Amino acid sequence: MSSIKTDVAVIGAGPVGLFSVFECGMMKMKCHVIDSLDMIGGQCAALYPEKPIYDIPACPEISAEKLVEQLHKQIEPFAPEFHLSQQVTGLEKLNDGWKVTTNKDTVIEAKAVFLAAGVGAFGPNRPPLEGIEKFEGQSVFYMVKKREDFRGKKIIIAGGGDSAVDWAVALADVAEKIYVVHRRPKFRAAPSMVEQMKALAESGKIELVVPYQLSSIEAGEEEAIAVNVSTLNGSETRCIEADVLLPFFGLSMNLGPILDWGLDLDEKHITVNPATCETNLPGVFAIGDISRYPGKLKLILTGFSEAAIAAHKARDLVFPGEVFHFEYSTTQGVPS
Amino acid sequence: MSSIKTDVAVIGAGPVGLFSVFECGMMKMKCHVIDSLDMIGGQCAALYPEKPIYDIPACPEISAEKLVEQLHKQIEPFAPEFHLSQQVTGLEKLNDGWKVTTNKDTVIEAKAVFLAAGVGAFGPNRPPLEGIEKFEGQSVFYMVKKREDFRGKKIIIAGGGDSAVDWAVALADVAEKIYVVHRRPKFRAAPSMVEQMKALAESGKIELVVPYQLSSIEAGEEEAIAVNVSTLNGSETRCIEADVLLPFFGLSMNLGPILDWGLDLDEKHITVNPATCETNLPGVFAIGDISRYPGKLKLILTGFSEAAIAAHKARDLVFPGEVFHFEYSTTQGVPS
Repeated sequence: MSSIKTDVAVIGAGPVGLFSVFECGMMKMKCHVIDSLDMIGGQCAALYPEKPIYDIPACPEISAEKLVEQLHKQIEPFAPEFHLSQQVTGLEKLNDGWKVTTNKDTVIEAKAVFLAAGVGAFGPNRPPLEGIEKFEGQSVFYMVKKREDFRGKKIIIAGGGDSAVDWAVALADVAEKIYVVHRRPKFRAAPSMVEQMKALAESGKIELVVPYQLSSIEAGEEEAIAVNVSTLNGSETRCIEADVLLPFFGLSMNLGPILDWGLDLDEKHITVNPATCETNLPGVFAIGDISRYPGKLKLILTGFSEAAIAAHKARDLVFPGEVFHFEYSTTQGVPS
Repeated sequence: MSSIKTDVAVIGAGPVGLFSVFECGMMKMKCHVIDSLDMIGGQCAALYPEKPIYDIPACPEISAEKLVEQLHKQIEPFAPEFHLSQQVTGLEKLNDGWKVTTNKDTVIEAKAVFLAAGVGAFGPNRPPLEGIEKFEGQSVFYMVKKREDFRGKKIIIAGGGDSAVDWAVALADVAEKIYVVHRRPKFRAAPSMVEQMKALAESGKIELVVPYQLSSIEAGEEEAIAVNVSTLNGSETRCIEADVLLPFFGLSMNLGPILDWGLDLDEKHITVNPATCETNLPGVFAIGDISRYPGKLKLILTGFSEAAIAAHKARDLVFPGEVFHFEYSTTQGVPS
């Protein structure tokens, strides 16, 4: 098949991957972006689009969805091309760059590769309940895209981490009733949110079903589901009828083939030189949550800075030997 | 005099200093901020408030003034205290922190000090014209705060760098006429802007007075000024009557006493460990344009990331021994 030739292949269309397109664009480098999801925005778009983020500099409060929208607008002048719903499979060294291939047979030849893959292609951990798949998308959801979809519903939230607790609190004022099923009485979440959830439990809006775990799911009356739960030793059981089950058992994160590319790794993160964000493979950079170096903070704003660093270094590969006249964006403007 | 006791003393109220207040605040550290200007915002506020900035992530276009306003709004919940119109003079080691003093006798005792001083206290380089000071603020300005103030005016811009060229172009559509006086025919500015200026010169909106230099200034008719210019060898002279003279001869930047504090320096920048942004003085951090490490980019967005890094490290000094439960801003929120 024919290959696409470009300057930079960006793997991952989360906020950091998107912003790297801007930084490359400002230095006249063209990007192609690959993502396993069917939309841009990564976790922000897929997992918590409505959640407000407070620590994006100069954005006192912005929803994850709006953040992605703004980044998309910012990179539009540079006309990046997106290859969505596909995962990278191969990385092969060329004479002057790299060849990246995906499981949809996209082939991109680029002077530099930016790995902005976050935690890798991600998906929810499913509870091991027989036949759960036939309820998925109808009454079983692993993420909340819109709170409004749950207005007036009876909801079972399963899990005891941040997502379970945050969503129990966040959905309390739209849901008719929320059951929180967790195998331990103690929740592993931000203390302030656990307190809020407990206050809602006292008011009766939320019922804490602890220590219980899910044992099976079946169709209930009309469109309802019947979820059976039991104590850990099985001595007590209970059946809860509800409209919706939201299992929050964390995400499985899958860096997949990236782990086999000969990159230096540190606990499933890619080690980079912080001065350049370059990995041990020359011309292959890692930015955002996937990269690691001493003092690394996993913040979106840190990833933005890494995108700028990688783009400046990549420029030497895309335009070798050209002297770079550094211009501030105020002087240079953006293409119109 | 009595000292103020706080967690972090931030020197410099530019964008990076301001954002450091946010990062500290999110970890419950209180800040006092010192600046030599009479307003917050640093160069953004003082030198180019109306200029659009394009490379702040998630802000496709934001004026420097608006950037400062947004940052101010973002840190308001943390109630930072500002000490403006004063320069730092002393830094003294205490048993558990540092004492910072200013030329207005403010004394701050803090567990950590963030140097976010940019290029230091800055001011314009004045042209060596006798009596120029009596025209300053009336018809001689070293910065453009509002383009509108110059509508319909005859303007002499002196200088050949980015500021001179950018402002010649930016003021062309409000001014009646612009003269650009430069001692060389060649301008040292972004090529695309020089092209734009030359196109405006061909259209007659701008007159390039090259190679000439300023030789004197005197009062002209009514409120006008008369500026005499001459070729470098003095063989040709010319008098230009105008409403306004804008000399853009760069800034004098003055790190002042900071240079005497025993900090490791590299060409007037402060060397830091990039993993922490800490200087050679434990508990003293340098962030933003003032700091240097391998691969350093002088971008506002890089400074934002450094502010986060420094704040995380400073936390160990402010709350020694306390385990830090890392929370994303989406979970934790901000104080209301």
